[in-house]
Amino acid sequence: MPHGVGFFATGDIATRLRMFGVAVHRTDYDGHARLCAVGDGVPVAWDEVRQWPEVEAVQPIAVPFKLVSRAFHPHPTLISVGRCTIGSDQLALMAGPCSIEGEEQAFTIAAAVARSGASVMRGGAYKPRTSPYSFQGLGEEGLRIMRRAADAHGLAVVSEVMDTQQVALVARYADILQVGARNMQNYSLLKEVGHAQKPVLLKRGLAATIEEWLMSAEHIMSNGNSQVILCERGIRTFETYTRNTLDLNAIPVVKELSHLPVIVDPSHGTGIRNKVAPMARAAVAAGADGLIIEVHHDPDHALSDGAQSLYPVQFDELVDQIRMIATAIGRRV
Amino acid sequence: MPHGVGFFATGDIATRLRMFGVAVHRTDYDGHARLCAVGDGVPVAWDEVRQWPEVEAVQPIAVPFKLVSRAFHPHPTLISVGRCTIGSDQLALMAGPCSIEGEEQAFTIAAAVARSGASVMRGGAYKPRTSPYSFQGLGEEGLRIMRRAADAHGLAVVSEVMDTQQVALVARYADILQVGARNMQNYSLLKEVGHAQKPVLLKRGLAATIEEWLMSAEHIMSNGNSQVILCERGIRTFETYTRNTLDLNAIPVVKELSHLPVIVDPSHGTGIRNKVAPMARAAVAAGADGLIIEVHHDPDHALSDGAQSLYPVQFDELVDQIRMIATAIGRRV
Amino acid sequence: MPHGVGFFATGDIATRLRMFGVAVHRTDYDGHARLCAVGDGVPVAWDEVRQWPEVEAVQPIAVPFKLVSRAFHPHPTLISVGRCTIGSDQLALMAGPCSIEGEEQAFTIAAAVARSGASVMRGGAYKPRTSPYSFQGLGEEGLRIMRRAADAHGLAVVSEVMDTQQVALVARYADILQVGARNMQNYSLLKEVGHAQKPVLLKRGLAATIEEWLMSAEHIMSNGNSQVILCERGIRTFETYTRNTLDLNAIPVVKELSHLPVIVDPSHGTGIRNKVAPMARAAVAAGADGLIIEVHHDPDHALSDGAQSLYPVQFDELVDQIRMIATAIGRRV
Amino acid sequence: MPHGVGFFATGDIATRLRMFGVAVHRTDYDGHARLCAVGDGVPVAWDEVRQWPEVEAVQPIAVPFKLVSRAFHPHPTLISVGRCTIGSDQLALMAGPCSIEGEEQAFTIAAAVARSGASVMRGGAYKPRTSPYSFQGLGEEGLRIMRRAADAHGLAVVSEVMDTQQVALVARYADILQVGARNMQNYSLLKEVGHAQKPVLLKRGLAATIEEWLMSAEHIMSNGNSQVILCERGIRTFETYTRNTLDLNAIPVVKELSHLPVIVDPSHGTGIRNKVAPMARAAVAAGADGLIIEVHHDPDHALSDGAQSLYPVQFDELVDQIRMIATAIGRRV
Repeated sequence: MPHGVGFFATGDIATRLRMFGVAVHRTDYDGHARLCAVGDGVPVAWDEVRQWPEVEAVQPIAVPFKLVSRAFHPHPTLISVGRCTIGSDQLALMAGPCSIEGEEQAFTIAAAVARSGASVMRGGAYKPRTSPYSFQGLGEEGLRIMRRAADAHGLAVVSEVMDTQQVALVARYADILQVGARNMQNYSLLKEVGHAQKPVLLKRGLAATIEEWLMSAEHIMSNGNSQVILCERGIRTFETYTRNTLDLNAIPVVKELSHLPVIVDPSHGTGIRNKVAPMARAAVAAGADGLIIEVHHDPDHALSDGAQSLYPVQFDELVDQIRMIATAIGRRV
Repeated sequence: MPHGVGFFATGDIATRLRMFGVAVHRTDYDGHARLCAVGDGVPVAWDEVRQWPEVEAVQPIAVPFKLVSRAFHPHPTLISVGRCTIGSDQLALMAGPCSIEGEEQAFTIAAAVARSGASVMRGGAYKPRTSPYSFQGLGEEGLRIMRRAADAHGLAVVSEVMDTQQVALVARYADILQVGARNMQNYSLLKEVGHAQKPVLLKRGLAATIEEWLMSAEHIMSNGNSQVILCERGIRTFETYTRNTLDLNAIPVVKELSHLPVIVDPSHGTGIRNKVAPMARAAVAAGADGLIIEVHHDPDHALSDGAQSLYPVQFDELVDQIRMIATAIGRRV
Repeated sequence: MPHGVGFFATGDIATRLRMFGVAVHRTDYDGHARLCAVGDGVPVAWDEVRQWPEVEAVQPIAVPFKLVSRAFHPHPTLISVGRCTIGSDQLALMAGPCSIEGEEQAFTIAAAVARSGASVMRGGAYKPRTSPYSFQGLGEEGLRIMRRAADAHGLAVVSEVMDTQQVALVARYADILQVGARNMQNYSLLKEVGHAQKPVLLKRGLAATIEEWLMSAEHIMSNGNSQVILCERGIRTFETYTRNTLDLNAIPVVKELSHLPVIVDPSHGTGIRNKVAPMARAAVAAGADGLIIEVHHDPDHALSDGAQSLYPVQFDELVDQIRMIATAIGRRV
Repeated sequence: MPHGVGFFATGDIATRLRMFGVAVHRTDYDGHARLCAVGDGVPVAWDEVRQWPEVEAVQPIAVPFKLVSRAFHPHPTLISVGRCTIGSDQLALMAGPCSIEGEEQAFTIAAAVARSGASVMRGGAYKPRTSPYSFQGLGEEGLRIMRRAADAHGLAVVSEVMDTQQVALVARYADILQVGARNMQNYSLLKEVGHAQKPVLLKRGLAATIEEWLMSAEHIMSNGNSQVILCERGIRTFETYTRNTLDLNAIPVVKELSHLPVIVDPSHGTGIRNKVAPMARAAVAAGADGLIIEVHHDPDHALSDGAQSLYPVQFDELVDQIRMIATAIGRRV
């Protein structure tokens, strides 16, 4: 067993298993404890373990992502943040500006998206920008503003963390720590948010396969944080009309392979304002657990991503359409 | 004007325009005739044309696809085939086996899909196969069988034509001529179906940009056939979990650029049976004008594409879900 | 054996094998006859065949491309055209304009490239163009001109054939029939050139995997024509700086998998004049059997692809560089 | 001037320019000082600046990467590390194991690659791994071992740094700090190595365009470190035969756009041992300034990437071939 092995067993035998030198993770399912032992090719005497009286069954997990897999945890993972439970029948609606630009902007947008039905406010304080000369975000001041704007309207907060040294700071203000697409395989960062006590929204990398994305989630979970929300945000293809190619196929694929909730970002996924609503509707119809959408009351003057931001009134109309689609597939907003 | 230029004008002045050496196409919109003059950089005296009394306006068409563009024909094109009008509020449902394999198979499947609400039967008689040693289709015998099976259940027929020499033959049996993804830029074939009197279903190539796809439609339209149905069927990316990556972004993009109807093939788009229904629902939510889906009553023994074919009962359930999604966006099955 | 099986046997037992209903192809290697039996899952009694006295060995060919594989024919295939033997130590240099535009152009360029060391003249008479309004080639008149220009300078001729109905015509003028990238999976065309008596230059499709490319060569070979020259001409990626991404990795991969010669087209592969020479040098260093390069004496007025055509003097300098690289790896121009 | 503007001026007027609120970078070329002023849309009174007596010329830099561009610094940048000057006529050969695994391994390989002509030893101490259960590297102990092995054979050291907190530590042992492909857009890390006093080897991201890659180099340079070595290591495409698709087109493209040296990693670029040598030769023929190659004396037991590592004897043969190719294009090993 050369590179990381996974097994699950019922009955609480974690301490004894750890004596073999493996890490042991536990979940509960249908009233039974389930354990997953992982390690780098450590020789566990499985034939012996199988005989322990507490052990009901031992079976290898065939996929490389162990803790993330449905084989380990068959039921959907539910993650409660503020008023919403991500992964439940109720869709999670996250909305807000690309970047927090100031008080008035943040409060105006927070009010609008809350009124339309969002339960989480999105907004960047630390911005990964292709150019070193572009607006880099307001930093902690931006987080402070967003927290107050969100609180004023009963919203939770999701915001991006760009490196290990920012994790503690962002976690003081935000309810969900976002790992951006460009950092999906920044393993030092994944380890750090794996130690945080807050849910992590993990965006899919621009050219990441679904398996690599789930492996990045495994990095987080193996460090102790099981509250991972996956977010499809578009992949890179040869197409130039749209900014990215939103890959909705990933939704049913992830739903089959993993118990983690998966949401969709049609704003970055398409990069074009009038393509956001149709792709948001499609994402819900394909089974997404929620949406994260850029909304700005004055997109022409936004400091970043104006061209893909919805006006508040467009977001409001979209939520109405989403409500009907959700009903058609047995879910709700 | 180096490579093909397009203009439109109101007022019927086609004959006089042609004297400049350009080809002239006509459409009608809001009670006005609209003309599109195309040619390879021919010098038309537009300043003079602008003065003709019949001319209301002259304006260049900025996109390279002229006849296909909304600039030329702002309203959606409607294509009537059998009981359905493709491009209308009513979704076009096309279903059937990958390949026609025999009488019993064709009649069984035709009965099932008709009962569920399909109006067009799909099925291949000439099959493009990666391997020369794979089943290549029943040829004309397959067309004959499919025609009878479809007629018995009030269905229209769509079937693939692989080369110029097959066009007349396939057109004798089928109501819609399908040009496959691998032939999207087979210009000789596009020209030939451009001369046919039957609607053409043009699949998007595996690595075709949306612009190239519309340019291929322009090849067909410029040869005189304006009944073109676009079909998104998945593009090639780095992802290996799914057979292809169904690109639903293409739907709102095509809808903005072109008046032609666009349908979606989630069977080839995903290549995995249990991914077909979620992606079919998503396609409708994104605004597709219809679906083309592989259905087989005994997929384990299908001579091609069994792994992605729905069972008839699955197709039936899918149509019910589609009906609800359609209602949510103001359309119907 | 579901889809096409391949075996090889030594000893001439072709007729008896065919009685099992399989097609049998023969090659010779090290003084032994080698046979390859292919068919669509036909049940051959291999255990019985193994006992025939003429049979030295029977072994399955594990790859899907049977005739194309080194398992069937271990030695490199040599294809003689005019003064050059493609696949030998001597590199095949093919050069000429994108399109034949007229007498003066063709003769001027033929003279130049012959002087620099090319042995084959390239030039299109039938052009696959994305736009129906672009220059489509001079047709048979173009072929006639090119034949005379080539003959006047001792060059062989390679020219593209776009559909089945053109094969006989193009074969009257050209020494090598080119199948373009967009037709790589036009199986009707592959079958037709498979029946021709001329070598076929098979370009790799824009998004074709190497296996699919070799499968298309198998289509040609299984129809009887074993003179297939593979041509890498760039694949489509997300990069927009170059027209395509020339994939030189394909050279050593093809050389390992197949006995067929492989040449490289750096003109279409990059689409930028000053990138042609470095990539041509790299192709030779990577082991390519030859190059096909666009050369035009007046590229600013070329009717197609001017921006990627070398001036004759640039081609001349390139051949000098190629000569030195070739020597470094034990080959020659 | 919305997002970062660049100008260059001759004459030393840096201090006065900075009073406008822009950052000013200086280079020297042909005995003249050249300045580049960058900032986020700051309004500099260029018409006034143009009148200053020290100013010879003011001109905008049209590309988004300013300091990286040839417009700012027309001559190739030379970076001296140990015995080699990267970017000079002499090719830089970097070789060594994927991961440092222990003393014996490191010293054995260092001896071998030094003997063959390498001047820099590569080796990972901190390994970014897709799976959290794979070998993660020896950490500081690995760096210590590599430094001693390299010193014993007169080699410089290049090793990867995975996050901001490792930069100071790795810089104590390594001569070149490597930023891996997965961290190409980890802007916090780019900023940190931009403050380091050591050269940075910046690998191209798996799906990064050439422009994005150069923009990441701009992040480093704009933070003060102008010693950036670009490294092409393969991009992700649909091809599955090779691990990645080594994109040699990037070499001539980068050489035209930028003054920075560019080297090639054919080991990760192909992922297959017997494809490394042909692609290494091709890289040199295309104009690369050097190579970085994985070499292992016992690849079957390597803890990572064994399948793509050359045996020392293969590396030795490769250097001989490289030497001949280099001569053919006027360079040397």
